[in-house]
Amino acid sequence: MFEYTRPVYYYETDQMGIVHHSNYVRWLEEARTEFFKKTNLAYVETERLGLFSPIIEISLKYKFPARYGEDFKVRMEMVKYTGVRFKIAYTVVNEEGVILLEGESAHCFTDKNHRPASLARVIPERHEAMRALIRERE
Amino acid sequence: MFEYTRPVYYYETDQMGIVHHSNYVRWLEEARTEFFKKTNLAYVETERLGLFSPIIEISLKYKFPARYGEDFKVRMEMVKYTGVRFKIAYTVVNEEGVILLEGESAHCFTDKNHRPASLARVIPERHEAMRALIRERE
Amino acid sequence: MFEYTRPVYYYETDQMGIVHHSNYVRWLEEARTEFFKKTNLAYVETERLGLFSPIIEISLKYKFPARYGEDFKVRMEMVKYTGVRFKIAYTVVNEEGVILLEGESAHCFTDKNHRPASLARVIPERHEAMRALIRERE
Amino acid sequence: MFEYTRPVYYYETDQMGIVHHSNYVRWLEEARTEFFKKTNLAYVETERLGLFSPIIEISLKYKFPARYGEDFKVRMEMVKYTGVRFKIAYTVVNEEGVILLEGESAHCFTDKNHRPASLARVIPERHEAMRALIRERE
Repeated sequence: MFEYTRPVYYYETDQMGIVHHSNYVRWLEEARTEFFKKTNLAYVETERLGLFSPIIEISLKYKFPARYGEDFKVRMEMVKYTGVRFKIAYTVVNEEGVILLEGESAHCFTDKNHRPASLARVIPERHEAMRALIRERE
Repeated sequence: MFEYTRPVYYYETDQMGIVHHSNYVRWLEEARTEFFKKTNLAYVETERLGLFSPIIEISLKYKFPARYGEDFKVRMEMVKYTGVRFKIAYTVVNEEGVILLEGESAHCFTDKNHRPASLARVIPERHEAMRALIRERE
Repeated sequence: MFEYTRPVYYYETDQMGIVHHSNYVRWLEEARTEFFKKTNLAYVETERLGLFSPIIEISLKYKFPARYGEDFKVRMEMVKYTGVRFKIAYTVVNEEGVILLEGESAHCFTDKNHRPASLARVIPERHEAMRALIRERE
Repeated sequence: MFEYTRPVYYYETDQMGIVHHSNYVRWLEEARTEFFKKTNLAYVETERLGLFSPIIEISLKYKFPARYGEDFKVRMEMVKYTGVRFKIAYTVVNEEGVILLEGESAHCFTDKNHRPASLARVIPERHEAMRALIRERE
Protein backbone atom coordinates (compact mmCIF):
# COMPACT_ATOMS: atom_id res chain seq x y z
CA MET A 1 0.00 0.00 0.00
CA PHE A 2 1.64 3.23 -1.18
CA GLU A 3 0.83 6.50 0.58
CA TYR A 4 1.17 10.04 -0.74
CA THR A 5 0.66 13.09 1.51
CA ARG A 6 0.56 16.82 1.00
CA PRO A 7 -1.29 19.92 2.26
CA VAL A 8 -4.45 21.17 0.57
CA TYR A 9 -3.62 24.31 -1.44
CA TYR A 10 -5.75 27.42 -1.04
CA TYR A 11 -6.38 27.64 -4.78
CA GLU A 12 -7.99 24.19 -4.61
CA THR A 13 -10.89 25.45 -2.47
CA ASP A 14 -14.14 26.83 -3.89
CA GLN A 15 -16.86 29.09 -2.54
CA MET A 16 -18.47 26.19 -0.65
CA GLY A 17 -15.39 26.51 1.59
CA ILE A 18 -14.11 23.04 0.66
CA VAL A 19 -11.81 21.54 -1.96
CA HIS A 20 -13.40 21.65 -5.40
CA HIS A 21 -14.17 18.14 -6.60
CA SER A 22 -12.12 18.49 -9.80
CA ASN A 23 -8.88 18.61 -7.82
CA TYR A 24 -9.07 15.02 -6.59
CA VAL A 25 -8.42 13.80 -10.12
CA ARG A 26 -5.16 15.73 -9.94
CA TRP A 27 -4.28 14.44 -6.48
CA LEU A 28 -4.56 10.87 -7.77
CA GLU A 29 -2.20 11.71 -10.62
CA GLU A 30 0.33 13.18 -8.19
CA ALA A 31 0.12 10.00 -6.12
CA ARG A 32 0.68 7.85 -9.22
CA THR A 33 3.72 9.92 -10.20
CA GLU A 34 5.29 9.36 -6.76
CA PHE A 35 4.32 5.68 -6.72
CA PHE A 36 6.00 5.02 -10.05
CA LYS A 37 9.05 7.08 -9.03
CA LYS A 38 9.46 4.91 -5.91
CA THR A 39 9.11 1.69 -7.87
CA ASN A 40 11.73 2.62 -10.50
CA LEU A 41 9.07 3.15 -13.12
CA ALA A 42 9.18 6.97 -13.19
CA TYR A 43 6.64 8.18 -15.73
CA VAL A 44 8.96 10.89 -17.05
CA GLU A 45 11.18 8.01 -18.19
CA THR A 46 8.25 6.14 -19.80
CA GLU A 47 7.69 9.16 -22.05
CA ARG A 48 11.42 9.41 -22.83
CA LEU A 49 11.27 5.77 -23.91
CA GLY A 50 8.49 6.69 -26.33
CA LEU A 51 5.31 5.60 -24.58
CA PHE A 52 2.48 7.66 -23.07
CA SER A 53 0.00 6.40 -20.54
CA PRO A 54 -3.33 8.22 -20.83
CA ILE A 55 -6.23 7.59 -18.48
CA ILE A 56 -9.15 5.71 -20.02
CA GLU A 57 -11.58 5.48 -17.13
CA ILE A 58 -12.04 7.05 -13.74
CA SER A 59 -14.71 6.63 -11.10
CA LEU A 60 -14.83 8.53 -7.83
CA LYS A 61 -17.06 8.51 -4.77
CA TYR A 62 -16.85 11.72 -2.76
CA LYS A 63 -17.39 10.86 0.92
CA PHE A 64 -16.39 13.89 2.97
CA PRO A 65 -15.12 17.39 2.16
CA ALA A 66 -11.40 18.21 2.29
CA ARG A 67 -10.42 21.59 3.70
CA TYR A 68 -7.60 24.10 3.47
CA GLY A 69 -5.38 23.94 6.56
CA GLU A 70 -5.28 20.13 6.51
CA ASP A 71 -3.07 17.54 4.89
CA PHE A 72 -4.58 14.72 2.87
CA LYS A 73 -3.24 11.24 2.19
CA VAL A 74 -3.80 9.20 -0.97
CA ARG A 75 -3.51 5.46 -0.34
CA MET A 76 -3.24 3.55 -3.58
CA GLU A 77 -2.36 0.23 -5.08
CA MET A 78 -2.18 -1.23 -8.55
CA VAL A 79 -4.94 -3.81 -8.67
CA LYS A 80 -4.60 -5.03 -12.26
CA TYR A 81 -2.00 -5.13 -15.04
CA THR A 82 -2.38 -6.90 -18.38
CA GLY A 83 0.64 -5.76 -20.41
CA VAL A 84 -1.44 -3.15 -22.22
CA ARG A 85 -3.58 -1.76 -19.39
CA PHE A 86 -3.48 -1.24 -15.65
CA LYS A 87 -5.91 -0.26 -12.93
CA ILE A 88 -5.30 1.56 -9.66
CA ALA A 89 -7.53 1.78 -6.59
CA TYR A 90 -7.39 4.79 -4.24
CA THR A 91 -8.61 5.88 -0.84
CA VAL A 92 -8.05 9.51 0.15
CA VAL A 93 -8.19 10.34 3.86
CA ASN A 94 -7.74 13.50 5.91
CA GLU A 95 -5.53 14.00 8.98
CA GLU A 96 -8.06 12.34 11.30
CA GLY A 97 -8.27 9.32 9.01
CA VAL A 98 -11.75 10.21 7.76
CA ILE A 99 -12.28 8.88 4.24
CA LEU A 100 -12.67 11.76 1.78
CA LEU A 101 -12.82 9.80 -1.45
CA GLU A 102 -12.71 6.29 -2.87
CA GLY A 103 -11.91 5.74 -6.50
CA GLU A 104 -10.41 3.75 -9.32
CA SER A 105 -8.63 4.68 -12.52
CA ALA A 106 -7.77 2.63 -15.61
CA HIS A 107 -4.86 3.45 -17.93
CA CYS A 108 -3.50 2.20 -21.23
CA PHE A 109 -0.32 2.81 -23.21
CA THR A 110 -0.03 4.67 -26.51
CA ASP A 111 2.70 5.79 -28.86
CA LYS A 112 3.29 9.49 -29.54
CA ASN A 113 0.50 9.46 -32.13
CA HIS A 114 -2.01 8.35 -29.49
CA ARG A 115 -2.28 4.83 -30.98
CA PRO A 116 -2.58 1.89 -28.53
CA ALA A 117 0.76 0.29 -27.67
CA SER A 118 1.92 -2.65 -25.59
CA LEU A 119 4.30 -1.96 -22.71
CA ALA A 120 5.21 -5.64 -22.82
CA ARG A 121 6.50 -5.26 -26.36
CA VAL A 122 7.95 -1.74 -26.35
CA ILE A 123 9.67 -1.66 -22.93
CA PRO A 124 9.95 -5.30 -21.79
CA GLU A 125 11.94 -4.54 -18.62
CA ARG A 126 9.19 -2.19 -17.45
CA HIS A 127 6.66 -4.88 -18.24
CA GLU A 128 8.51 -7.21 -15.87
CA ALA A 129 8.63 -4.53 -13.16
CA MET A 130 4.87 -3.93 -13.52
CA ARG A 131 4.19 -7.66 -13.25
CA ALA A 132 6.37 -7.82 -10.15
CA LEU A 133 4.29 -5.05 -8.55
CA ILE A 134 1.13 -7.05 -9.11
CA ARG A 135 2.69 -10.31 -7.87
CA GLU A 136 3.88 -8.61 -4.65
CA ARG A 137 0.30 -7.78 -3.92
CA GLU A 138 -0.93 -11.35 -4.23
CA MET B 1 -31.03 17.08 -24.64
CA PHE B 2 -29.09 20.18 -23.60
CA GLU B 3 -25.91 21.11 -25.44
CA TYR B 4 -23.00 23.26 -24.24
CA THR B 5 -20.17 24.33 -26.57
CA ARG B 6 -16.92 26.18 -26.17
CA PRO B 7 -13.33 26.15 -27.48
CA VAL B 8 -10.59 24.14 -25.79
CA TYR B 9 -8.30 26.53 -23.89
CA TYR B 10 -4.55 26.28 -24.33
CA TYR B 11 -3.97 25.97 -20.60
CA GLU B 12 -6.09 22.80 -20.64
CA THR B 13 -3.56 20.91 -22.77
CA ASP B 14 -0.69 18.88 -21.34
CA GLN B 15 2.64 17.69 -22.71
CA MET B 16 0.96 14.74 -24.48
CA GLY B 17 -0.40 17.48 -26.79
CA ILE B 18 -4.00 16.81 -25.77
CA VAL B 19 -6.43 18.09 -23.15
CA HIS B 20 -5.47 16.88 -19.68
CA HIS B 21 -8.07 14.45 -18.37
CA SER B 22 -8.77 16.49 -15.22
CA ASN B 23 -10.36 19.27 -17.27
CA TYR B 24 -13.36 17.22 -18.38
CA VAL B 25 -14.70 17.26 -14.82
CA ARG B 26 -14.73 21.05 -15.13
CA TRP B 27 -16.34 21.02 -18.56
CA LEU B 28 -19.24 18.98 -17.16
CA GLU B 29 -19.68 21.52 -14.36
CA GLU B 30 -19.76 24.38 -16.88
CA ALA B 31 -22.41 22.50 -18.85
CA ARG B 32 -24.51 21.96 -15.69
CA THR B 33 -24.27 25.67 -14.84
CA GLU B 34 -25.61 26.63 -18.28
CA PHE B 35 -28.27 23.90 -18.20
CA PHE B 36 -29.65 25.09 -14.86
CA LYS B 37 -29.46 28.73 -15.99
CA LYS B 38 -31.58 27.89 -19.07
CA THR B 39 -34.13 25.98 -17.00
CA ASN B 40 -34.62 28.79 -14.44
CA LEU B 41 -32.77 26.86 -11.79
CA ALA B 42 -29.56 28.91 -11.83
CA TYR B 43 -27.18 27.43 -9.29
CA VAL B 44 -26.01 30.86 -8.09
CA GLU B 45 -29.62 31.30 -6.90
CA THR B 46 -29.67 27.88 -5.18
CA GLU B 47 -26.76 29.02 -3.02
CA ARG B 48 -28.44 32.37 -2.31
CA LEU B 49 -31.46 30.39 -1.12
CA GLY B 50 -29.21 28.55 1.32
CA LEU B 51 -28.52 25.21 -0.35
CA PHE B 52 -25.35 23.81 -1.87
CA SER B 53 -25.18 20.97 -4.33
CA PRO B 54 -21.92 19.05 -4.04
CA ILE B 55 -21.00 16.19 -6.32
CA ILE B 56 -21.08 12.76 -4.67
CA GLU B 57 -20.08 10.48 -7.52
CA ILE B 58 -18.56 10.79 -10.94
CA SER B 59 -17.57 8.21 -13.52
CA LEU B 60 -15.94 8.98 -16.84
CA LYS B 61 -14.85 6.98 -19.86
CA TYR B 62 -12.25 8.74 -21.99
CA LYS B 63 -12.78 7.73 -25.62
CA PHE B 64 -10.72 10.09 -27.76
CA PRO B 65 -8.37 13.00 -27.10
CA ALA B 66 -9.57 16.61 -27.29
CA ARG B 67 -7.21 19.16 -28.82
CA TYR B 68 -6.50 22.86 -28.73
CA GLY B 69 -7.83 24.58 -31.85
CA GLU B 70 -11.15 22.71 -31.68
CA ASP B 71 -14.49 23.33 -30.01
CA PHE B 72 -16.11 20.64 -27.89
CA LYS B 73 -19.77 20.02 -27.14
CA VAL B 74 -21.17 18.59 -23.92
CA ARG B 75 -24.53 16.88 -24.43
CA MET B 76 -26.25 16.22 -21.13
CA GLU B 77 -29.53 15.31 -19.55
CA MET B 78 -30.80 14.82 -16.04
CA VAL B 79 -31.60 11.12 -15.81
CA LYS B 80 -32.76 10.89 -12.17
CA TYR B 81 -34.12 13.15 -9.44
CA THR B 82 -35.39 12.01 -6.05
CA GLY B 83 -35.94 15.25 -4.12
CA VAL B 84 -32.60 14.85 -2.34
CA ARG B 85 -30.35 13.68 -5.17
CA PHE B 86 -30.03 13.92 -8.92
CA LYS B 87 -27.99 12.25 -11.62
CA ILE B 88 -26.79 13.61 -14.96
CA ALA B 89 -25.51 11.73 -18.01
CA TYR B 90 -23.05 13.32 -20.44
CA THR B 91 -21.54 12.76 -23.85
CA VAL B 92 -18.73 15.06 -24.96
CA VAL B 93 -18.01 15.26 -28.69
CA ASN B 94 -15.57 17.21 -30.85
CA GLU B 95 -16.32 19.28 -33.97
CA GLU B 96 -16.48 16.18 -36.18
CA GLY B 97 -18.93 14.53 -33.81
CA VAL B 98 -16.35 12.03 -32.52
CA ILE B 99 -17.16 10.99 -28.94
CA LEU B 100 -14.45 12.21 -26.59
CA LEU B 101 -16.01 11.16 -23.29
CA GLU B 102 -19.03 9.50 -21.76
CA GLY B 103 -19.87 10.00 -18.13
CA GLU B 104 -22.29 10.35 -15.27
CA SER B 105 -22.35 12.46 -12.14
CA ALA B 106 -24.50 12.23 -9.00
CA HIS B 107 -25.26 15.22 -6.77
CA CYS B 108 -26.97 15.83 -3.45
CA PHE B 109 -28.06 18.93 -1.54
CA THR B 110 -26.55 20.22 1.70
CA ASP B 111 -26.95 23.21 3.98
CA LYS B 112 -24.08 25.63 4.53
CA ASN B 113 -22.61 23.31 7.16
CA HIS B 114 -22.33 20.50 4.59
CA ARG B 115 -25.18 18.50 6.19
CA PRO B 116 -27.58 16.68 3.84
CA ALA B 117 -30.68 18.67 2.99
CA SER B 118 -33.83 18.11 0.96
CA LEU B 119 -34.52 20.41 -1.98
CA ALA B 120 -38.15 19.30 -1.77
CA ARG B 121 -38.44 20.71 1.74
CA VAL B 122 -36.16 23.76 1.59
CA ILE B 123 -37.01 25.17 -1.86
CA PRO B 124 -40.32 23.50 -2.89
CA GLU B 125 -40.75 25.51 -6.11
CA ARG B 126 -37.33 24.33 -7.31
CA HIS B 127 -38.31 20.80 -6.40
CA GLU B 128 -41.30 21.12 -8.72
CA ALA B 129 -39.11 22.52 -11.49
CA MET B 130 -36.67 19.63 -11.12
CA ARG B 131 -39.52 17.10 -11.27
CA ALA B 132 -40.83 18.80 -14.38
CA LEU B 133 -37.41 18.40 -16.02
CA ILE B 134 -37.48 14.67 -15.36
CA ARG B 135 -41.09 14.30 -16.51
CA GLU B 136 -40.32 16.10 -19.81
CA ARG B 137 -37.79 13.42 -20.51
CA GLU B 138 -40.21 10.53 -20.08
CA MET C 1 -10.25 47.39 -28.85
CA PHE C 2 -11.06 43.68 -28.79
CA GLU C 3 -13.53 42.34 -26.20
CA TYR C 4 -13.88 38.80 -24.87
CA THR C 5 -16.77 37.76 -22.60
CA ARG C 6 -17.73 34.64 -20.72
CA PRO C 7 -19.31 33.59 -17.40
CA VAL C 8 -17.22 32.97 -14.29
CA TYR C 9 -17.01 29.21 -13.69
CA TYR C 10 -17.77 27.81 -10.24
CA TYR C 11 -14.43 25.99 -10.10
CA GLU C 12 -12.68 29.36 -10.44
CA THR C 13 -13.96 30.56 -7.04
CA ASP C 14 -12.10 30.00 -3.77
CA GLN C 15 -13.14 29.96 -0.13
CA MET C 16 -13.06 33.78 0.03
CA GLY C 17 -16.21 33.48 -2.13
CA ILE C 18 -14.55 35.23 -5.09
CA VAL C 19 -12.57 34.20 -8.16
CA HIS C 20 -9.10 32.98 -7.21
CA HIS C 21 -6.47 35.41 -8.50
CA SER C 22 -4.61 32.73 -10.49
CA ASN C 23 -7.52 32.40 -12.93
CA TYR C 24 -7.13 35.88 -14.41
CA VAL C 25 -3.88 34.80 -16.06
CA ARG C 26 -5.94 32.15 -17.84
CA TRP C 27 -8.72 34.58 -18.78
CA LEU C 28 -6.17 36.79 -20.51
CA GLU C 29 -4.89 33.80 -22.48
CA GLU C 30 -8.43 32.92 -23.57
CA ALA C 31 -8.90 36.51 -24.71
CA ARG C 32 -5.64 36.40 -26.69
CA THR C 33 -6.71 33.15 -28.37
CA GLU C 34 -9.98 34.73 -29.53
CA PHE C 35 -8.27 37.97 -30.55
CA PHE C 36 -5.77 36.15 -32.77
CA LYS C 37 -8.52 33.92 -34.19
CA LYS C 38 -10.49 37.01 -35.22
CA THR C 39 -7.47 38.66 -36.81
CA ASN C 40 -6.53 35.61 -38.93
CA LEU C 41 -3.54 34.88 -36.74
CA ALA C 42 -4.97 31.85 -34.90
CA TYR C 43 -2.35 30.59 -32.47
CA VAL C 44 -3.10 26.95 -33.25
CA GLU C 45 -1.82 27.75 -36.76
CA THR C 46 1.32 29.50 -35.42
CA GLU C 47 2.28 26.24 -33.71
CA ARG C 48 1.50 24.23 -36.87
CA LEU C 49 3.87 26.57 -38.72
CA GLY C 50 6.59 25.68 -36.20
CA LEU C 51 6.65 28.63 -33.81
CA PHE C 52 5.60 28.86 -30.18
CA SER C 53 4.80 32.05 -28.35
CA PRO C 54 5.55 31.77 -24.64
CA ILE C 55 4.84 34.55 -22.17
CA ILE C 56 7.91 36.33 -20.83
CA GLU C 57 6.40 38.90 -18.49
CA ILE C 58 3.07 39.56 -16.86
CA SER C 59 1.94 42.24 -14.43
CA LEU C 60 -1.53 42.46 -12.94
CA LYS C 61 -3.34 44.87 -10.64
CA TYR C 62 -6.35 43.33 -8.92
CA LYS C 63 -8.96 46.05 -8.42
CA PHE C 64 -12.23 44.37 -7.46
CA PRO C 65 -13.32 40.75 -6.88
CA ALA C 66 -15.06 38.75 -9.62
CA ARG C 67 -17.91 36.47 -8.58
CA TYR C 68 -19.69 33.35 -9.73
CA GLY C 69 -23.05 34.20 -11.29
CA GLU C 70 -21.60 37.07 -13.31
CA ASP C 71 -20.02 37.44 -16.73
CA PHE C 72 -16.68 39.17 -17.14
CA LYS C 73 -15.26 41.02 -20.14
CA VAL C 74 -11.60 41.22 -21.10
CA ARG C 75 -10.81 44.33 -23.15
CA MET C 76 -7.42 44.07 -24.77
CA GLU C 77 -5.19 45.54 -27.40
CA MET C 78 -1.75 44.86 -28.74
CA VAL C 79 0.35 47.85 -27.72
CA LYS C 80 3.73 46.84 -29.09
CA TYR C 81 5.21 44.51 -31.73
CA THR C 82 8.87 44.35 -32.75
CA GLY C 83 9.09 41.29 -35.02
CA VAL C 84 10.38 39.16 -32.17
CA ARG C 85 8.21 40.31 -29.27
CA PHE C 86 4.79 41.76 -28.59
CA LYS C 87 2.96 43.30 -25.66
CA ILE C 88 -0.73 43.31 -24.82
CA ALA C 89 -2.65 45.54 -22.39
CA TYR C 90 -5.84 44.35 -20.70
CA THR C 91 -8.73 45.68 -18.65
CA VAL C 92 -11.14 43.16 -17.17
CA VAL C 93 -14.58 44.44 -16.13
CA ASN C 94 -17.69 42.85 -14.66
CA GLU C 95 -21.28 43.19 -15.88
CA GLU C 96 -21.72 46.59 -14.25
CA GLY C 97 -18.55 47.86 -15.89
CA VAL C 98 -16.57 47.84 -12.63
CA ILE C 99 -12.87 47.32 -13.34
CA LEU C 100 -11.73 43.99 -11.87
CA LEU C 101 -8.19 43.94 -13.17
CA GLU C 102 -5.67 45.89 -15.21
CA GLY C 103 -2.64 44.19 -16.67
CA GLU C 104 -0.02 43.72 -19.32
CA SER C 105 1.71 40.71 -20.79
CA ALA C 106 4.81 40.41 -22.97
CA HIS C 107 5.43 37.51 -25.35
CA CYS C 108 8.23 36.29 -27.57
CA PHE C 109 8.54 33.60 -30.24
CA THR C 110 10.54 30.38 -29.98
CA ASP C 111 11.14 27.28 -32.06
CA LYS C 112 10.10 23.86 -30.79
CA ASN C 113 13.32 23.62 -28.77
CA HIS C 114 12.41 26.78 -26.84
CA ARG C 115 15.09 28.85 -28.59
CA PRO C 116 14.25 32.47 -29.48
CA ALA C 117 12.92 32.90 -33.01
CA SER C 118 11.85 35.77 -35.23
CA LEU C 119 8.27 35.79 -36.50
CA ALA C 120 9.43 38.25 -39.15
CA ARG C 121 11.86 35.66 -40.54
CA VAL C 122 9.99 32.39 -40.01
CA ILE C 123 6.43 33.41 -40.97
CA PRO C 124 6.75 36.70 -42.89
CA GLU C 125 3.04 36.95 -43.78
CA ARG C 126 2.15 36.77 -40.11
CA HIS C 127 4.75 39.43 -39.40
CA GLU C 128 2.95 41.70 -41.86
CA ALA C 129 -0.42 40.95 -40.23
CA MET C 130 1.00 41.75 -36.78
CA ARG C 131 2.44 45.03 -38.06
CA ALA C 132 -0.93 45.88 -39.58
CA LEU C 133 -2.59 45.35 -36.18
CA ILE C 134 -0.23 47.81 -34.57
CA ARG C 135 -0.60 50.36 -37.39
CA GLU C 136 -4.41 50.22 -37.10
CA ARG C 137 -4.05 51.34 -33.54
CA GLU C 138 -1.96 54.38 -34.32
CA MET D 1 15.34 33.52 2.93
CA PHE D 2 12.59 30.89 2.99
CA GLU D 3 12.67 28.02 0.50
CA TYR D 4 9.79 25.86 -0.73
CA THR D 5 10.35 22.79 -2.91
CA ARG D 6 8.13 20.31 -4.69
CA PRO D 7 7.99 18.32 -7.94
CA VAL D 8 6.34 19.70 -11.07
CA TYR D 9 3.00 17.94 -11.57
CA TYR D 10 2.13 16.46 -14.96
CA TYR D 11 -1.15 18.39 -15.10
CA GLU D 12 0.85 21.62 -14.90
CA THR D 13 2.46 21.04 -18.30
CA ASP D 14 0.99 22.24 -21.58
CA GLN D 15 1.43 21.23 -25.20
CA MET D 16 4.66 23.26 -25.48
CA GLY D 17 6.07 20.48 -23.26
CA ILE D 18 6.75 22.88 -20.39
CA VAL D 19 4.90 24.14 -17.31
CA HIS D 20 2.05 26.46 -18.30
CA HIS D 21 2.79 30.00 -17.12
CA SER D 22 -0.42 30.27 -15.07
CA ASN D 23 0.85 27.68 -12.58
CA TYR D 24 3.64 29.85 -11.22
CA VAL D 25 1.08 32.12 -9.58
CA ARG D 26 -0.10 29.04 -7.68
CA TRP D 27 3.42 27.95 -6.77
CA LEU D 28 4.03 31.33 -5.15
CA GLU D 29 0.84 30.93 -3.12
CA GLU D 30 1.93 27.49 -1.95
CA ALA D 31 5.27 28.95 -0.88
CA ARG D 32 3.52 31.75 1.04
CA THR D 33 1.32 29.22 2.82
CA GLU D 34 4.36 27.27 3.99
CA PHE D 35 6.28 30.42 4.89
CA PHE D 36 3.47 31.71 7.11
CA LYS D 37 3.00 28.24 8.65
CA LYS D 38 6.68 28.15 9.60
CA THR D 39 6.57 31.64 11.11
CA ASN D 40 3.50 30.94 13.29
CA LEU D 41 1.31 33.08 11.06
CA ALA D 42 -0.60 30.23 9.37
CA TYR D 43 -3.06 31.76 6.94
CA VAL D 44 -5.78 29.26 7.83
CA GLU D 45 -5.70 30.89 11.29
CA THR D 46 -5.84 34.42 9.83
CA GLU D 47 -9.15 33.52 8.23
CA ARG D 48 -10.44 31.94 11.45
CA LEU D 49 -9.59 35.21 13.18
CA GLY D 50 -11.80 37.01 10.66
CA LEU D 51 -9.35 38.50 8.17
CA PHE D 52 -8.66 37.60 4.55
CA SER D 53 -5.54 38.51 2.63
CA PRO D 54 -6.24 38.90 -1.08
CA ILE D 55 -3.53 39.64 -3.61
CA ILE D 56 -3.59 43.15 -5.05
CA GLU D 57 -0.66 43.10 -7.43
CA ILE D 58 1.60 40.56 -9.04
CA SER D 59 4.42 40.88 -11.52
CA LEU D 60 6.37 37.99 -12.97
CA LYS D 61 9.32 37.60 -15.30
CA TYR D 62 9.54 34.19 -16.93
CA LYS D 63 13.20 33.32 -17.47
CA PHE D 64 13.41 29.63 -18.31
CA PRO D 65 10.88 26.82 -18.77
CA ALA D 66 10.11 24.38 -15.95
CA ARG D 67 9.61 20.74 -16.88
CA TYR D 68 7.87 17.64 -15.60
CA GLY D 69 10.35 15.24 -14.01
CA GLU D 70 12.10 18.02 -12.10
CA ASP D 71 11.64 19.67 -8.72
CA PHE D 72 11.41 23.44 -8.42
CA LYS D 73 12.32 25.68 -5.51
CA VAL D 74 10.63 28.95 -4.61
CA ARG D 75 12.92 31.29 -2.66
CA MET D 76 10.98 34.12 -1.09
CA GLU D 77 11.16 36.86 1.46
CA MET D 78 8.81 39.50 2.77
CA VAL D 79 10.28 42.80 1.61
CA LYS D 80 7.70 45.24 2.97
CA TYR D 81 4.99 45.38 5.65
CA THR D 82 2.99 48.46 6.60
CA GLY D 83 0.29 47.14 8.95
CA VAL D 84 -2.25 47.07 6.16
CA ARG D 85 -0.21 45.70 3.26
CA PHE D 86 2.79 43.50 2.59
CA LYS D 87 4.99 42.66 -0.35
CA ILE D 88 6.90 39.46 -1.12
CA ALA D 89 9.75 38.89 -3.57
CA TYR D 90 10.35 35.50 -5.20
CA THR D 91 12.93 33.64 -7.22
CA VAL D 92 11.99 30.23 -8.60
CA VAL D 93 14.84 27.91 -9.61
CA ASN D 94 15.06 24.38 -11.00
CA GLU D 95 17.21 21.50 -9.72
CA GLU D 96 20.34 22.84 -11.44
CA GLY D 97 19.80 26.25 -9.88
CA VAL D 98 18.73 27.85 -13.17
CA ILE D 99 16.38 30.77 -12.52
CA LEU D 100 12.94 30.00 -13.91
CA LEU D 101 11.07 33.05 -12.67
CA GLU D 102 11.48 36.27 -10.73
CA GLY D 103 8.49 38.03 -9.27
CA GLU D 104 6.80 40.11 -6.64
CA SER D 105 3.34 40.09 -5.11
CA ALA D 106 1.53 42.67 -2.97
CA HIS D 107 -1.24 41.77 -0.51
CA CYS D 108 -3.69 43.62 1.69
CA PHE D 109 -6.11 42.59 4.43
CA THR D 110 -9.91 42.65 4.22
CA ASP D 111 -12.84 41.63 6.39
CA LYS D 112 -15.26 38.94 5.23
CA ASN D 113 -17.15 41.51 3.16
CA HIS D 114 -14.00 42.29 1.16
CA ARG D 115 -13.58 45.72 2.79
CA PRO D 116 -10.03 46.87 3.59
CA ALA D 117 -8.94 46.06 7.15
CA SER D 118 -5.86 46.68 9.29
CA LEU D 119 -3.99 43.68 10.63
CA ALA D 120 -2.44 46.03 13.20
CA ARG D 121 -5.86 46.82 14.62
CA VAL D 122 -7.73 43.51 14.21
CA ILE D 123 -5.00 41.01 15.19
CA PRO D 124 -2.31 43.03 17.03
CA GLU D 125 -0.17 40.01 17.96
CA ARG D 126 0.07 39.03 14.30
CA HIS D 127 1.00 42.59 13.47
CA GLU D 128 3.93 42.30 15.89
CA ALA D 129 4.98 38.97 14.36
CA MET D 130 4.88 40.50 10.86
CA ARG D 131 6.99 43.46 12.02
CA ALA D 132 9.47 41.06 13.56
CA LEU D 133 9.80 39.25 10.22
CA ILE D 134 10.67 42.51 8.50
CA ARG D 135 13.10 43.57 11.25
CA GLU D 136 14.94 40.23 11.04
CA ARG D 137 15.66 41.00 7.43
CA GLU D 138 17.24 44.36 8.10
